[in-house]
Amino acid sequence: MRFEILGTDGAARVGRLVTAHGAVETPAFMPVGTQGTVKSLTPEDLRQAGAQILLANTYHLFLRPGHRLIAGLGGLHRFMAWDGPLLTDSGGFQVYSLAALSKVSEEGVKFRSHLDGAEHLLTPELSVEIQEALGADIIHPLDECLAHPSPRAETEASLARTLRWAARAKAAHAGAAGRQAMFGIVQGGGYEDIRRRAVEETCALEFDGYAIGGLAVGEPKPLMLDLLAFTGALLPEDQPRYLMGVGTPRDLVEAVARGVDLFDCVLPTRNARNGQLFTADGVLTIKQSRYAADARPPESGCSCYTCRNFSRAYLRHLFVARELLAYRLLSLHNLHFYLRLVMDMRAAVAARAFSAFGARFLGRYAVSSDDGSPSHPGDTEA
Amino acid sequence: MRFEILGTDGAARVGRLVTAHGAVETPAFMPVGTQGTVKSLTPEDLRQAGAQILLANTYHLFLRPGHRLIAGLGGLHRFMAWDGPLLTDSGGFQVYSLAALSKVSEEGVKFRSHLDGAEHLLTPELSVEIQEALGADIIHPLDECLAHPSPRAETEASLARTLRWAARAKAAHAGAAGRQAMFGIVQGGGYEDIRRRAVEETCALEFDGYAIGGLAVGEPKPLMLDLLAFTGALLPEDQPRYLMGVGTPRDLVEAVARGVDLFDCVLPTRNARNGQLFTADGVLTIKQSRYAADARPPESGCSCYTCRNFSRAYLRHLFVARELLAYRLLSLHNLHFYLRLVMDMRAAVAARAFSAFGARFLGRYAVSSDDGSPSHPGDTEA
Repeated sequence: MRFEILGTDGAARVGRLVTAHGAVETPAFMPVGTQGTVKSLTPEDLRQAGAQILLANTYHLFLRPGHRLIAGLGGLHRFMAWDGPLLTDSGGFQVYSLAALSKVSEEGVKFRSHLDGAEHLLTPELSVEIQEALGADIIHPLDECLAHPSPRAETEASLARTLRWAARAKAAHAGAAGRQAMFGIVQGGGYEDIRRRAVEETCALEFDGYAIGGLAVGEPKPLMLDLLAFTGALLPEDQPRYLMGVGTPRDLVEAVARGVDLFDCVLPTRNARNGQLFTADGVLTIKQSRYAADARPPESGCSCYTCRNFSRAYLRHLFVARELLAYRLLSLHNLHFYLRLVMDMRAAVAARAFSAFGARFLGRYAVSSDDGSPSHPGDTEA
Repeated sequence: MRFEILGTDGAARVGRLVTAHGAVETPAFMPVGTQGTVKSLTPEDLRQAGAQILLANTYHLFLRPGHRLIAGLGGLHRFMAWDGPLLTDSGGFQVYSLAALSKVSEEGVKFRSHLDGAEHLLTPELSVEIQEALGADIIHPLDECLAHPSPRAETEASLARTLRWAARAKAAHAGAAGRQAMFGIVQGGGYEDIRRRAVEETCALEFDGYAIGGLAVGEPKPLMLDLLAFTGALLPEDQPRYLMGVGTPRDLVEAVARGVDLFDCVLPTRNARNGQLFTADGVLTIKQSRYAADARPPESGCSCYTCRNFSRAYLRHLFVARELLAYRLLSLHNLHFYLRLVMDMRAAVAARAFSAFGARFLGRYAVSSDDGSPSHPGDTEA
């Protein structure tokens, strides 16, 4: 994997990440394909919407259909018919958030599957084994993600374990390191001094890039942005930075201003299935009766398939009638919106006009109609 | 509307139906878009799968979102972004099969909406008004469809009312007859002499084509095929014949052999959502564990998007995980299968080789794995 910075504007960067399955222009947004599919969409749809790289969830694919089955069929790229870059998480976040009875020890995390209750032990080594079998271009070491707020002593102990697990994951992946990049994950909770130590000790392990974890886990937004700026400024400038599981359109703009290169989030697809459309003016809730006879497209000027062909009235009809096509057409628009936003940000950084772009976007995108959904690192499309 | 016969082979015919929204090569299969959408698929998908004409259900669109709303947005073609030919049924069959407490009188059918219990009276005139507002290229008069078996006296009385309603519908449509074709519906139950009278008196009203109703309503398959052959032979040779709501792939082959030009059925899409894939060898039930690691496409040699890109193992995974993409990819294949079948039949009739084609198809398509689902005239995608 290669990464080059093509331009900067303040802390914001525009770059190119080159993987074995193609290049990714950064800042980039990764649609979430939890179970090996971005819900309701085909790889062709995703390409047309401008997706360059997808995320898949290790926890889900480990449990069903199983990483060995996918490896036997030629790996995840072939299984889901996506020939572009793929990134997998470590599975840890889902174990903490979805599985029943998860219990952390030095060895790893013991948990019961949310599907059938079967007991499993996810270790740093098993997480690497699964991710090697899936064959994503970028993989992650097992980490522990604490909620906010967590006590200082607990945060320090957790970070120490995350760092020991990171070293074990790196060792386990040594044989296949040439085929897949591995990003380190920076934890450290809400304490700047612990975050600083997290950056230093994670970077000392020499990963191919760095994920910023433990943000958007319950802390106030201003604290999240301060911690992000603080952490971003400490990370090596010449390596990619991935902000896990964030966030709203506003979050993306704020995070690019603080030097983030990669994002993933379920909001565009999950909110689509709940009838919410992202537009430059904020969120449009399609089931509202005021759209019943509205002949306009969801977002004027949008070039997505949905906006080029369908009215708000038709989309409302589909949504109210619980038609499958509703989820698909809304997902398509929302992903197009997110992917266009990062494209516009790349252009603004390249033109050294990012702060004006950000001010214009944030000024227009209505706060009151922001989705308000909490975003979560490593969140999945349940 | 124009219809020309381009070739015949026995009773089988190949032809072309020209509507204001384009031509339809016959025999043709119409995907069912009950609520103004073929479930899970876009107009673009349908075109690529080879669809030439779609069916929409008057009953559903009358209740939600309402025909006046659709008319105000420019009609059904524009509402659903389908610029090809459209056909609507009269709404009668759904009133009998879906609505609560339907009650037939000379005036029409009183019923309660399956959505909200509201009482409505569907008359021949209202059915025409709704269908004119929707703007389909081919519309139908309100009729009564009896179950099999029905007593002779009841069948005769019902036919007499259907014929009176047909005359009222024709009169109501007189002003807009130049813009939309209207097909008469031939009822008559399981009695050849009543069917003969139905054909004579319906044809005396001079419709643009003829739908064969009241078949596949509970009668044994051999009786259905006999009644179909009997009715087909009586209908005017130079006008299109539409067999409502039929059927399985075998039914389509048998019906083309008896002179049918148009079909609609929910089987390809409904069965897709239940995990059944149609193939030249019969039905494949994707959830079966024997497909868990099967790298082959659903149907070898099939050129649909699903078969070109995905394995049985992946489709099984999606279906077992209840992923939305499963319903879409299976629907796409099944419609492609049906649309290819009618295309192959057109070629076979044109080459005067239909009986050999039919024998080969029926010999290979496994009876034991046939879906066995009853097909219904005017059935809808609930």
